[in-house]
Amino acid sequence: MKTIKDSVHGHIEVGGVARDLLDTALVQRLRRVRQLGTVDLVYPSANHTRFEHSLGVYHLADRALGHLGIEGREAERVRAAALLHDVGHSPYSHNLEALVYRHTGAEHDDVEELLAGGEVAAILEAHDLDPGRIAGLVAGEGRLGQLVSGELDIDRMDYLVRDAHHTGVPYGTIDHDRLVRELRYLDGELVLDEGNVQTAESLLVARALMNPVVYSHPVARIGKAMLRRAAERLLDAGLAADDLRRMDDADLIVALREHAATAADAARLDRRDLYKRAVWAELRDTPDDLVDADHDAIRERERTIAERAEVEADDVILDVPSRPSMTESSTRVVVSGEIRPLGRQSTLVEALDAIQRDQWRLGVYAPDDAAERVGNAAANVLGLDIDGALVSDVRPGTHTTLDEFATE
Amino acid sequence: MKTIKDSVHGHIEVGGVARDLLDTALVQRLRRVRQLGTVDLVYPSANHTRFEHSLGVYHLADRALGHLGIEGREAERVRAAALLHDVGHSPYSHNLEALVYRHTGAEHDDVEELLAGGEVAAILEAHDLDPGRIAGLVAGEGRLGQLVSGELDIDRMDYLVRDAHHTGVPYGTIDHDRLVRELRYLDGELVLDEGNVQTAESLLVARALMNPVVYSHPVARIGKAMLRRAAERLLDAGLAADDLRRMDDADLIVALREHAATAADAARLDRRDLYKRAVWAELRDTPDDLVDADHDAIRERERTIAERAEVEADDVILDVPSRPSMTESSTRVVVSGEIRPLGRQSTLVEALDAIQRDQWRLGVYAPDDAAERVGNAAANVLGLDIDGALVSDVRPGTHTTLDEFATE
Amino acid sequence: MKTIKDSVHGHIEVGGVARDLLDTALVQRLRRVRQLGTVDLVYPSANHTRFEHSLGVYHLADRALGHLGIEGREAERVRAAALLHDVGHSPYSHNLEALVYRHTGAEHDDVEELLAGGEVAAILEAHDLDPGRIAGLVAGEGRLGQLVSGELDIDRMDYLVRDAHHTGVPYGTIDHDRLVRELRYLDGELVLDEGNVQTAESLLVARALMNPVVYSHPVARIGKAMLRRAAERLLDAGLAADDLRRMDDADLIVALREHAATAADAARLDRRDLYKRAVWAELRDTPDDLVDADHDAIRERERTIAERAEVEADDVILDVPSRPSMTESSTRVVVSGEIRPLGRQSTLVEALDAIQRDQWRLGVYAPDDAAERVGNAAANVLGLDIDGALVSDVRPGTHTTLDEFATE
Amino acid sequence: MKTIKDSVHGHIEVGGVARDLLDTALVQRLRRVRQLGTVDLVYPSANHTRFEHSLGVYHLADRALGHLGIEGREAERVRAAALLHDVGHSPYSHNLEALVYRHTGAEHDDVEELLAGGEVAAILEAHDLDPGRIAGLVAGEGRLGQLVSGELDIDRMDYLVRDAHHTGVPYGTIDHDRLVRELRYLDGELVLDEGNVQTAESLLVARALMNPVVYSHPVARIGKAMLRRAAERLLDAGLAADDLRRMDDADLIVALREHAATAADAARLDRRDLYKRAVWAELRDTPDDLVDADHDAIRERERTIAERAEVEADDVILDVPSRPSMTESSTRVVVSGEIRPLGRQSTLVEALDAIQRDQWRLGVYAPDDAAERVGNAAANVLGLDIDGALVSDVRPGTHTTLDEFATE
Repeated sequence: MKTIKDSVHGHIEVGGVARDLLDTALVQRLRRVRQLGTVDLVYPSANHTRFEHSLGVYHLADRALGHLGIEGREAERVRAAALLHDVGHSPYSHNLEALVYRHTGAEHDDVEELLAGGEVAAILEAHDLDPGRIAGLVAGEGRLGQLVSGELDIDRMDYLVRDAHHTGVPYGTIDHDRLVRELRYLDGELVLDEGNVQTAESLLVARALMNPVVYSHPVARIGKAMLRRAAERLLDAGLAADDLRRMDDADLIVALREHAATAADAARLDRRDLYKRAVWAELRDTPDDLVDADHDAIRERERTIAERAEVEADDVILDVPSRPSMTESSTRVVVSGEIRPLGRQSTLVEALDAIQRDQWRLGVYAPDDAAERVGNAAANVLGLDIDGALVSDVRPGTHTTLDEFATE
Repeated sequence: MKTIKDSVHGHIEVGGVARDLLDTALVQRLRRVRQLGTVDLVYPSANHTRFEHSLGVYHLADRALGHLGIEGREAERVRAAALLHDVGHSPYSHNLEALVYRHTGAEHDDVEELLAGGEVAAILEAHDLDPGRIAGLVAGEGRLGQLVSGELDIDRMDYLVRDAHHTGVPYGTIDHDRLVRELRYLDGELVLDEGNVQTAESLLVARALMNPVVYSHPVARIGKAMLRRAAERLLDAGLAADDLRRMDDADLIVALREHAATAADAARLDRRDLYKRAVWAELRDTPDDLVDADHDAIRERERTIAERAEVEADDVILDVPSRPSMTESSTRVVVSGEIRPLGRQSTLVEALDAIQRDQWRLGVYAPDDAAERVGNAAANVLGLDIDGALVSDVRPGTHTTLDEFATE
Repeated sequence: MKTIKDSVHGHIEVGGVARDLLDTALVQRLRRVRQLGTVDLVYPSANHTRFEHSLGVYHLADRALGHLGIEGREAERVRAAALLHDVGHSPYSHNLEALVYRHTGAEHDDVEELLAGGEVAAILEAHDLDPGRIAGLVAGEGRLGQLVSGELDIDRMDYLVRDAHHTGVPYGTIDHDRLVRELRYLDGELVLDEGNVQTAESLLVARALMNPVVYSHPVARIGKAMLRRAAERLLDAGLAADDLRRMDDADLIVALREHAATAADAARLDRRDLYKRAVWAELRDTPDDLVDADHDAIRERERTIAERAEVEADDVILDVPSRPSMTESSTRVVVSGEIRPLGRQSTLVEALDAIQRDQWRLGVYAPDDAAERVGNAAANVLGLDIDGALVSDVRPGTHTTLDEFATE
Repeated sequence: MKTIKDSVHGHIEVGGVARDLLDTALVQRLRRVRQLGTVDLVYPSANHTRFEHSLGVYHLADRALGHLGIEGREAERVRAAALLHDVGHSPYSHNLEALVYRHTGAEHDDVEELLAGGEVAAILEAHDLDPGRIAGLVAGEGRLGQLVSGELDIDRMDYLVRDAHHTGVPYGTIDHDRLVRELRYLDGELVLDEGNVQTAESLLVARALMNPVVYSHPVARIGKAMLRRAAERLLDAGLAADDLRRMDDADLIVALREHAATAADAARLDRRDLYKRAVWAELRDTPDDLVDADHDAIRERERTIAERAEVEADDVILDVPSRPSMTESSTRVVVSGEIRPLGRQSTLVEALDAIQRDQWRLGVYAPDDAAERVGNAAANVLGLDIDGALVSDVRPGTHTTLDEFATE
């Protein structure tokens, strides 16, 4: 047993297959991939990494397995999957995910390929574990996959608490210890035991409160949009998407600095000299076809806006988040002895669903001195139902939070 | 300036009138009145007192005044009111409030009377402060009264965090520092500044999550019902209600132990030998006239149930909470430059309102060996719409939590 | 298994014999005995009880047993001893210990008698455990007794962290998790495993830092001296010492209020209207025979001082702590494969020993208006080697800390 | 005022010159310089940066100035110096400091040069502040320089708490709030006010406990030695030392990966495939001339050891820390009205001094498979007084801690 001190969970004991996997290149690379991508532009303390998160997920998995009474090879499989679940992540975690998927034609991380051969496969096989099954667990397959990747997964239990600890925003402080204790398998389904409707709700509430303040903070979104745009230029300039996804944060930062096509972007990100919001529009003010537009259509709109505003094409970024959805509503809880989806049991889930739609924002970003012109052009081009006066004034809207540490 | 170390806020600096008030009998008595009454029967660490809470409210008031730019005598008045706001509390804080009000004919704590004369009045007057106006602030009167007792009051900001710290339940961990910073006066109304809809929501969510797990935990409610019943016996035996309300926790505990009419109750409470739930019914299953029944009607029903169940009258406690209401929905937030009530702005408030109704429970309690008979009798007498099988089985219902540390 | 939420350790699982012992009168009484006696006069949040501490010690014992690989009846014995180790404590914990011992002729708590019969004995026997052996463990007997009561005991590991949490003073924040993990038995001795000299030192340092700021804070000591004096009056007035030691804090508070001989003391304590320091002398300035004086000799000196100062006998309290000793210096650590006493291995232990002597203070206390006269008389009567000017000026000395929250 | 959320201090308000300095390239670069260099090889959560630390120091400076009553331009100067105090740090903070100094001939960071011109100078001048005086404060000059860089500096108060928060090691949890409150100027000297000998001691104790467990953990030292060696190869291969010191962590990581001379080192660091300890010798076992040897002499010994052990020259790293010294012993405290150096007042300081000498270790590191041979050769070449059997066995010695997360 190796004991590792973690700032969130205290002492984490690592044994068995996990111990052997720990010092592999695939897992160690996660030390250089920050958990929250560009969120550190808003919260300077948010420098924690996928490595410590993976250890945390491993730890919670190990404890959940104990409470569930799962042992032996089955348990080792879950522990391996927990430690490996993020090895396919691109640099800056989820910031470049969509870009990489689009350019590789993938629909998810290539965990299966990564585990199929080489050092990790050898270790798994030495422990009599099948790499394909581990990849399956990471993908959420089967009864045990629900634990690694599902509505009640330990991934979420770790990241909420960890992100709260490192940003200083308390909303993510859930009772993960209780959640792990109350997991049960009933009829092959992972559920929360009787008396835990509220425990389940608290998990959803924590995410709903963290979302606009941390994960989708406007400044973090602008930084992410700028980074994505710059990374796209690297791909256009010949970098293979498969190489991009294998980089760590340091590789990407330096690549952006060194390449002529992206040096200016890198300088902006390095200095936190970010674009500003030219438009910030609610879902109800945004035409449906724009919400559902694909990447090409969005790039096309950007060009039209730039022309109309008489600015460089690069001076406009149109940032359209995907439609809100709340998968947790299918979290299963036991109520009076039967399994029920939380969404049917809890009034709160419905409200959180509505909140998520309220919190959705379309953003158009531009350099400070072009923001007003771009805003006016964008409202016109995109057919946004916005009162003219508010366009470049930034509509803070219902659920947007104070721009802590924003230059705006 | 005196500096006091507090487990929640760190160093609290006490000066001016507050410093002089600190060592008065009225304020020092709060050291022996626990903040959460019988909640320590569920959470053994919940032994914090009204004294440290009052200091915390004073501290937050002082900081809010700084952010609001209020100084001089007006500020001193608020500080005095903050420190004194709980001096009228009975032993066991809110546990005996209704009982005391019923027996004294009062509708609220007698803060006005307490401040009108004696040591405290002398100190207030020496600082050129009018006791009546301080009592008015405690009652929530005026612009500044909203800060001490209103929808956005600092009372709540302190107790949620403090109760979380001392119970170990994390749900109350709000961002009180941000709340205090974002308070503003607009058109004479205390509001949360632009961009804080979510900050306001987080306060409501924290209370909604703490409520069933802490404040209305079944075991705490049973303890409270038993205590209230015992205290009522003391009043019936001749104790004056005005003497009861001046006691501290130690006085009451010992009085219950020493009086023949209550020695058995005291022994039960001392040993945590509590009644059990015979019925635990939702709002929708409870007849309206029962929800709105007054004290006499409830005692009458208890007697009928006891007769039907063939047990002693003392063996039945019928515990009917008041109808749920959510005053916070009128919390005022600034959105796009105008003041709006949170209830109109936030989808969440409506949901929390519904949740509060979901969480409401009527309880019938009885000694362990009588619980089944009492449950059956009660369902019948009270006309509850409960499936017979569940009566004494305790319906955990939607939002009830695990009975941590319950003997049940 | 019952799960109890604790503010320090999170979820504590209570099973086996401990679960049955939990709701006995002997254990439940500890809910009404505060852990730190009069320390709440300095730190208003220090209201935690012997009950939650006992649960914490039980929890750490359970975890230590797991790491040590001890199971079965032997482990159950330790768990029972951990939960029961404080049942013999008087009200206000250690504040009245010496008084009770003197009046009963005892040399330690009467745990053996308490466990020998009644409810607890019946439970122990039902679990096939011998009450006498449990009492032996509490007294530190044998290999396992070292775990419950010894140089490396879990009692200390719990109270340091708990007292830090509840006072807000961070110095007690030790790494108890690591301490529990590193315990080993070697040649029948409880030791800290290789590489833990510093872990052992950190435990000693924590206590040395907490001592003058918390445990021996001047205001706490004055409160304790006044309480002890008042309790002694109750005994003189006929209260049996064996009854006193069975009281809880509420019983004692009310007894002091109700008895004519102590009502004035109770009023002072209730209002925090404490005596002031008339003398505060270092060890090197105090004659040896005074340091070693017994109770009668001390009372005799008080009377002489009072006469000389022309004040009532009750207006003088002479408070002479026992000589400093550092039992932890015999803590055993493994260094290069052999067991060594920490005192021989660590330069720090020697220093802490010297610090403890530096921190020792003799106190003479008196009502505010008599303090100067009493101070001068006491210096003279006691033969203290103090520069006259400093006598009633209070010598803050080397290691005395700021009087946070003192009225002095 | 801009408000920034920090994981340690909560909300930090940044105004005046600090606000303008915040988004300069010089300050923003600190976002990519980790606070603890290679310590993350031991504590995976230790990814915090010089940027958040600089903000923290700014915050504590601001609060200290408030308590000290210093305002106006003098205060702005201190705030600027606090925010800028680390801008001269090389990548990996102190890990490469000695190397950079040797190659540039400098004796300290080139803060003066960095502030003398460009963007930062312009901002300082716009606020009517002289860059040279700010640099002087960073260097500890004058009365106010003691606050920024001295025995009682706020730098230390921030980093101890921050490092504790991010590593999870509790020993650094000092009472920084009290320290900041108790600072005074007396006769032009920065001192801790009366009654704070212990407060001063607690700061020293924290550092003494953090040192071997965090700052000088063997694995962190090995990582640092490997990094330093690799960086030296980059310099030998033509990189200018002045370019190296301006890099951030990402630049350096990628430079090491990309250069042929260091690609193997980078791969080892990336994979945490570290050298092992071949020798770990105490100060008393190490010849004086070796302790005081300069860089050339050390490289010469490495070559001799390598020859004797018949391994590549690169396979031996000799790591000789500088002689222990304890500057804090001159911390000034007020005792009985006069200023005294803590070292003369406190028994503990002397002990900590001895401990520091006890904790000193010379290390010889080598690849795993060469460690035994190298160890034997080194003991012989270096004339270490070590029992043969222990050479490559690693002498854990008195104060070395468990290798948490070491592969060794």
